[in-house]
Order: sequence, then structure tokens, then C-alpha cells
Amino acid sequence: MSKTQNKLSIIPLGGVGEIGKNMTVYTYGNDIIVIDAGLKFPEEEMLGIDIVIPDITYLIENKSKVRGVFLTHGHEDHIGGLPYLLKSLNVPVFGTRLTLGLVEGKLREHGLLETAKLNPITNQSVIKSGEFTVSVFQNNHSIPDTVGFAIDTPEGVVVHTGDFKFDFTPVDGQKADFFKLAQLGEKGVLALLSDSTNAERPGYTMSERVVGQTINDCFATAEGRVIIATFSSNLHRIQQIIAAAEKYGRNLAIVGRSMVNNITVAHELGYIRINPGTLVELDEINKLPANRIAILSTGSQGEPMSALTRMARATHRKVEVMPGDTVIIASSPIPGNEKYISRTIDQLFRIGANVIYQSVSGVHVSGHASQEELKLMLSLVRPKYFVPVHGEYRMLKRHSELAIATGVDPENIFIVDIGDSIEFQGGKGRLGPKYTAGNVLIDGLGVGDVGNIVLRDRKLLSQDGILVVVVTLSKQDGTILSGPDIISRGFVYVRESEELLEEANKIVMQTLAKLVSENVNEWSSLKNGVRDALGRYLYEQTRRRPMILPIIMEV
Amino acid sequence: MSKTQNKLSIIPLGGVGEIGKNMTVYTYGNDIIVIDAGLKFPEEEMLGIDIVIPDITYLIENKSKVRGVFLTHGHEDHIGGLPYLLKSLNVPVFGTRLTLGLVEGKLREHGLLETAKLNPITNQSVIKSGEFTVSVFQNNHSIPDTVGFAIDTPEGVVVHTGDFKFDFTPVDGQKADFFKLAQLGEKGVLALLSDSTNAERPGYTMSERVVGQTINDCFATAEGRVIIATFSSNLHRIQQIIAAAEKYGRNLAIVGRSMVNNITVAHELGYIRINPGTLVELDEINKLPANRIAILSTGSQGEPMSALTRMARATHRKVEVMPGDTVIIASSPIPGNEKYISRTIDQLFRIGANVIYQSVSGVHVSGHASQEELKLMLSLVRPKYFVPVHGEYRMLKRHSELAIATGVDPENIFIVDIGDSIEFQGGKGRLGPKYTAGNVLIDGLGVGDVGNIVLRDRKLLSQDGILVVVVTLSKQDGTILSGPDIISRGFVYVRESEELLEEANKIVMQTLAKLVSENVNEWSSLKNGVRDALGRYLYEQTRRRPMILPIIMEV
Repeated sequence: MSKTQNKLSIIPLGGVGEIGKNMTVYTYGNDIIVIDAGLKFPEEEMLGIDIVIPDITYLIENKSKVRGVFLTHGHEDHIGGLPYLLKSLNVPVFGTRLTLGLVEGKLREHGLLETAKLNPITNQSVIKSGEFTVSVFQNNHSIPDTVGFAIDTPEGVVVHTGDFKFDFTPVDGQKADFFKLAQLGEKGVLALLSDSTNAERPGYTMSERVVGQTINDCFATAEGRVIIATFSSNLHRIQQIIAAAEKYGRNLAIVGRSMVNNITVAHELGYIRINPGTLVELDEINKLPANRIAILSTGSQGEPMSALTRMARATHRKVEVMPGDTVIIASSPIPGNEKYISRTIDQLFRIGANVIYQSVSGVHVSGHASQEELKLMLSLVRPKYFVPVHGEYRMLKRHSELAIATGVDPENIFIVDIGDSIEFQGGKGRLGPKYTAGNVLIDGLGVGDVGNIVLRDRKLLSQDGILVVVVTLSKQDGTILSGPDIISRGFVYVRESEELLEEANKIVMQTLAKLVSENVNEWSSLKNGVRDALGRYLYEQTRRRPMILPIIMEV
Repeated sequence: MSKTQNKLSIIPLGGVGEIGKNMTVYTYGNDIIVIDAGLKFPEEEMLGIDIVIPDITYLIENKSKVRGVFLTHGHEDHIGGLPYLLKSLNVPVFGTRLTLGLVEGKLREHGLLETAKLNPITNQSVIKSGEFTVSVFQNNHSIPDTVGFAIDTPEGVVVHTGDFKFDFTPVDGQKADFFKLAQLGEKGVLALLSDSTNAERPGYTMSERVVGQTINDCFATAEGRVIIATFSSNLHRIQQIIAAAEKYGRNLAIVGRSMVNNITVAHELGYIRINPGTLVELDEINKLPANRIAILSTGSQGEPMSALTRMARATHRKVEVMPGDTVIIASSPIPGNEKYISRTIDQLFRIGANVIYQSVSGVHVSGHASQEELKLMLSLVRPKYFVPVHGEYRMLKRHSELAIATGVDPENIFIVDIGDSIEFQGGKGRLGPKYTAGNVLIDGLGVGDVGNIVLRDRKLLSQDGILVVVVTLSKQDGTILSGPDIISRGFVYVRESEELLEEANKIVMQTLAKLVSENVNEWSSLKNGVRDALGRYLYEQTRRRPMILPIIMEV
């Protein structure tokens, strides 16, 4: 292939038309680089599914071309799919020190740490990767060491923001690199791919320092113990909580597996400062007076098995919430978790705790840019083409309106779905072919072995349960040797519905007898006959449609 | 019993510590009255359940004392449980004309209309009911003809607000009865039971007229068709939509069963004005130019089977949304529905419609009083005792803080759970005994026949499915005559997991052979052995725990 025929293709395999499982592929000639490898959490109808990752058929089919995976930051929706990708494709991974520190824990769990090729980068790195030259730039987000990438290609520079906000007073002092972004804009940027999560929110997102101030106020006025729950990855907030504990002379105990893990990693790598003597073991806290105690915990989403929920329900092994405790829930509910978190808050109030939470006070700010910041990014970078990413369709749409407002030609905006490609050749962009993309469902150890039929069955089973009808027939003459036995699960209380089930039994008997007398002896016909007759009867009696599973044994 | 020993008991059977299924019982001596008989929608973990109603054991045990049910307004969470109550207890029902109009439809469906004793009341009615004298007062809410009750008892007057807001510019001109409330306060009120739904919201709730103005603006500027979805019971909003259609010369088609029903009832009773010629059949709209068409639809919560969702997905028989349509979603998501409504909005944007919805514009106001209005109610009524109702615990707690701020003695506030009673005797209130209360789950025709065991099974089935293991054994010697057969549903794709299921079959064979050789021949032991061995194997291989149902047939 001659160079002039080459083109740049950008293919989002995840993160557009959805929140989560972010992954974007850049292809030029024989070189492919991948930005991020995230997971998303299952939708409500994906019953029993643990996590969802992108379909990487395209990468597997082009295995020999893939030069590396570049990670913007250490959140699950950007790194959670990495172990599954590396199992198919052991390519070099590039990430900042904290990001790689968090990746290492994951790879260890999957037995991949020994073989993985991890390459630390800084916010000043420039990495040559085939035809691509990737320059890193500093971002702000709700986890430290978050970066974006300026990808220099033969077709021009593409700026890929990753998740970001502009925090003018960041907790770790690492401001976004306005100069680098402005310089890129001045030199000319072919395309911008930018975070759309908060594209529906007017104004600016507040600085993380605002939360620090609220937390300080809470520590200053609390008379009893302070228990504070937040996202275990929000190390800026965790740093501010540690500082507040130290300022007000409280010892701090840390509760919850992911909180302990993340703080350990971040502390080892120097991303968190803790004075000697601040931390105490959870076992030790009862020896201290209430006003010298602070507890930092997971469970800010009210997850039923989390530390905070167990402390609230007095099912935690070591601590329970008591009247007089101040409990701070420093987070906002992720859509779908509203009910869990409300229940936890109710339970805490019932105990007599003083609860400080989102609806009534400013204990959380977002990690994503609001409309004015998105316009600032667009104004710094001044791209010719614009591709809103990281968002559901309406957010991408809203973001594209912001781009138009800042001067991007509406013709040069692509709102795409996963698997769509945007091709650039001779400075011109257009929609290219559609590639394989989708949701790969992970259930336990199974990757992709649960599909629509299994999910449909789980849905049916969850609504009205199941009736199993077993009968043993004679091989000779089809007479019933044993049964029919009817066993139900998830349908009705058996004890209270004996009559119903006895009648159901009669109907199965009659149906079988009738079919056999008519010389119907194919199993499938017998089973369908039983399923229809029994289904009809049960629906008439109960207006429910349990799954009916007829089983015929032959002796 | 001498009169001096009598006491007033107030027993909430629903609506405290929860949103929905509102029902409050007032007992004095041999007289009981009930305020409201609502339903609530099932929590996420109540799989397959249709609706939830209060446990009315207390009323059934005191059947002969119940003088009547008084309804505050026609919303499901206040009237939806009425048919179930009347089946046990055919007592007189009191409600305003619109409320009874909506009740009639329900009773007809349940075959109760002929026998029900419905008594229309007005906002000026005074009803003597045993020892109680119930005076009606006008309220504002998101449905017309909403009232509250001042209940005169030998212990004093109790004011029961029902759902309310203060709308100074109500669409139907029916202002809340400030004078009556103030007069009650001036004379002295024993206790106030007041709506806590919005007790977490600062400020005032906007007037419904604000929505009317937004709708007008949308109609004024829309160039294509206008499709607008809202709650079918919000007849104020529906009136404003009709008026906007008429003002801007558009014909209006009505879509969705509950929308058609409610408008029919309200129009017949004179609660809605429609000019002749405004309404058109849905079949007719395609004959009109786009700028003469408006469609009023159900589906403002994005419910998968609703008219709006079907129009968006092009699965509606008669209309589909087209590029250039303006779609207004005039509602806010009920907690739990956020994802459904987001998907519908995304789908509408994908089609190319101009979508106007909550996050970006004021097309909805609440029907419930915010903090300043709650304080206004407290200040008008000036109760000695205060019981916050209609809300989850944190809302009741917040409402009680507002009561304290307006001067109620903290000792005189009762935050209670369903089944708790508050007793008043000699002008003094205290917590009384706890009565039977709870959730009665309705699934199809079954009332209360689905309990914890059935729900637990549905939950298990929904997570990892089921494996049924059937084997036919010889009565004589326990040898296997047929099977074991393994049938799975909702577990794995059978085709992709043949090896796993073959191995599972071997394990069942080995386990049975071993147990039989050890002379274990009790069925329960055989079943447990199979369940344990198979469960262990499947968990090792898949990290899943399907329900395992061993069935032994004997011949």
C-alpha cells in the first residue's frame, strides 16, 4: 500500500451512546493504537451479569498491527477491561505511575502481572508508536495523574481529552496544561474527541477544594465520631479528609477493601501524604474518645454489602454507627443507585446519626467538565473536526451544539455509535465503514457465554418463577409409570396453593392421556401439549405466566 | 367503657417510612375512620410483583367499627388500594367528584361498582361519622379536586393535609383555603399530619402556571408537529396543553389508554374545557399539515410499553416520531425510572426530533410543598402535636426539623413507622402499641400469596438461572433406570457449554453411584448429595451458583 492511499481511521469501540467501557481505536496503515480499555456496569435487564466490556473482534483480527494501549487514568470505566484485552493481545501498555499502580492490582488478580508490558509515562512524555506520535498532557479529574493525549498522525493532530474538568485550584497542584492545549490549537488540530459526561450541565464544575472546605467545616463542628464515605478512587478527596483529620486532632481508621487497597497503592507511590500516627487500626478506635475518632469508609453508593451499609445495619464485625456520630456521604448517586443510598441514609437517621449528604449540602463535586469548561476546551484546541465521546446520545448531541457555538462547522461534527469509523484522508473527514462492536457480558468466569436467550430466560424466571413437570413413561406403550410430579420455584407458596397444584397435576394427567390415546407420541408434541394446557390453566387462575419445563423420562 | 377512658388513636398503616400506599386510621372508642387507601409500586427486589398495598388486618379485626374511608384525591398512591379494601370491608367511601370519578373506573374493573357506597363531597362538606366530624378543606396538588380534612374528635381537632402545595395562581382558580386553615389554628389544633414528600427541598414549589408558560412558548416556536407527554392524572397540565393547542391553531390527538380514560372522565365531570373541533382522531392527523398537529401522550416516564416509547421506536400502530417533530416530556423521572426515560430521550434525539425535557428546561413543577410552604402550613395550623407523614424516614426527619423551627415542641413530634400508634387522652399524646402492618404484594390475581421465599427464589433464578437434574431409580434396588438428565435455563448457552454439561452429568452419575453403594437411600440425602457435588463443580468452573433442583422418580 502506498502512503498516499493510507488514511487515519478513528473507531470508538465503547463509550459513545453509553456511559462506560471507554475504548477508542486509532488506525493508520499498519499501525493501531488503542486509548483506554474500560468496563461498564450491567444495565438493569442484564440479570446476573457482573460487568460488561467492549467487543474487541476488530483488534483481534488486526492483532499484528496493535502497537499499544494508552490509558488516560485509573478509573474502572477506562482500565477495567484491560485484563480481558491483554489475555487476547499482550501489547505494551502506557499509563502514568498511579494508573499503572492501580492496573497492577488487577493484572495480579488475573495472573497477568508477570507477562504484561507496562510502560510508565509522565505528563511530559512523547511516545513514538508506529506512525503515531503520542504527546501526553496533564488533565484534572476526580483521580490524580489523569492525562489526555495529542496524537500526531500523518493526517494531522488529534486531541483525545479522556475524562477531564478544569480545576483552577487542584488539590495536588497539578493544573491542566493550558499552554500545551493552546499551542496545539495555534498549530492546528485536525480533530478533537472530548468528554461529554456533563454536557447537559450549565456553568462550571466546582473545584474539588470546595468539598475540602465542607469536610473541614464538618470536622470542626462534629462532637462525636466522624464517619465519612466516598469513592475509594477519589484520592484528592481522600487527601483532604486525611488533612482534616490531622488538623482537628482525630485519628483515622480506614474501612473497606478497595479503600485500603487504593490508599496503600497511592501512599506507596507518593500520591498521598499521611502524617505518622494519623492512621489507627479499626480495632484500636474504641480505646479513643469519640471526638478523636474519624473513620474513612467505602459504601458511598449505599451498596448492600459495603462497609458503610454494614456499619449502619450493625452487621459490620468491628464498628457500628451510634447516636451522635456524624456521617458524611461525600458522593452523588450514580444513576440506578439512588434507592440504595436513600435506604442507607434513612437507616443512619433512624439510628440517630447526624447525616450530611448531597441533597442538603455541598459534599460532592463532579470530576467532569460542565458546559463552560467544554467550551473552554473547544476554544483552546480549535479543532477542524469534532467528535463528542464519553456519553449517552443526548449528551453527545448537546456537546455538539456547544462545539457549533464555539465555531466548529456543523458539517465537521460526527456523532457516532460504537463500531462506527471516522476516516481522514487528505485533510478531509467522513464516516467510514462500520466494524464489529458490542457488549461482551461477563458472568463469573464466563466471558461472552451469556447472551440474549439466557438473559431472556433469567428475566422470565425472575417475573413468575418456574414449574417443572416430570413424568416417566413406558417405552413399550407410553403409559405413565411415575408422575407427573410438579415442582415449582418462585411461583407461589406451595403450602398455600395446594389445591392449585393438585388441579394442575390433574390437567397434566388428562392432557397426556388424551394425547397418548390420539397416538401422539413424539416427545416434543407431548411437551408442547402439557406446556400449553398447563400454561392456560395457570394464567386463568393466577394471571401469571411462569416458565413451564416439561420433562419426559422413558423406562 | 365510659367516655372518660376513651382515647384517640392515630395509626398510619402506610405512607410513613416510605413513599406510597398512603393510609391512616383514626380510632376513637367504637368508631374508626380511614383516610386514603393507596398502593405503591414494587421495590426493585420485589421481582414479578405488580403492586403493593397496605396490610389491613387491623381494619378487618375491627370491621364493625369502621365508619368510612375518606379520600383526599385521585392519585394511585391514595386510591389504588381501595378495591382490595372494599372486598374485605364494604364501608362508605367519601371523595370529591373527580376523585370518585376516577375511583369508579377502578371499581368497575374489580366488579365492585354496583355494591360500593360512594358519597360525593365538596370542599365545604362537613361529615359526621360516629364520634368524628370531618370538615373538608381545599388544597392544591397536581390533580384537581384535592382536599384535606380537619377531623374533630372528643380529644380535639386533627388536621390531615393529604398531598398538597400552595399554588397562589392555580390553573383551575381553586386556591387552598387559607382562611379555614388559619381559623382552625386560631381555635386550636391538637395535631397536624402533613405531607413530607418535598421536605428536603428548600424554597417554594413553583406554580403549575410556570409549566403552562413553557408549553405555550414551545407551541409558539415549533415548526413541525408537537408531541407532548405528561402524567395522565395531571389535569391542570393537560388543560394548559389543550389551551395551548387551541391558541396556536393545532388540532390535538390523544394517545394512550390512561390519558384517554382520564380526559374522558374529567371532561364528562366538567373538570376540563375543550373547544368543539379541537380534538381529532389519531387516524386523521396525517391529513393535516405538520404545523396544525399536536399529540398528547402517555409515556412521560419512558415506560417500555407506553405510547411515547412506541412512537419513538416506530412500533406504534398509528404514529411514529419524525425528524422535525418537537417532543416535550413534561414530567420529572420518578426514582427508578431515570434510565427508561433517558433511553427514550436518546432515541428521540437519534430520530432527529427537537426534545424538550427536564434537565434543560422548566417543563415540570412538583405537586408537593417545599420547605417554605411546609412552614406556612405549620404556621397557619399551629398544632400542639406534629406527625410528619407521606415520606421516607429522612424526609420525615427533615420535616420535623421544620416543625421545630416554627415553634412546635420537639417533645410533641412523633416520627413513626407503619403500624405504630399515637394515642391522645386528656390532651396529652404518647406512642401507643404497635399494630399489624406491612406490605401485601399483588402478583396477577394473587393477593399476598407471594412472600419472602418466593421472592428469594425469583432473585436466585434471575442471577444464575436453574439446573434441573432428573433421574429415574428402580424401586427394588435403587439402580438408575433413566437419566440423569440435566436441563438448564438461564445458566449458560447450552450449545457453547456442551462439555461443561457432559462433565456435570458424569458428576451426578458418580455421586449417585457412590451414595447408593453406601446404602444411602433416603431421597433427601440423595438430592442433597447431588446438589452439593454439582454446585461445587459448577462454581469451580464458572463462579456461578445456579439453583439446582434434583428430582428423583421411582419406578
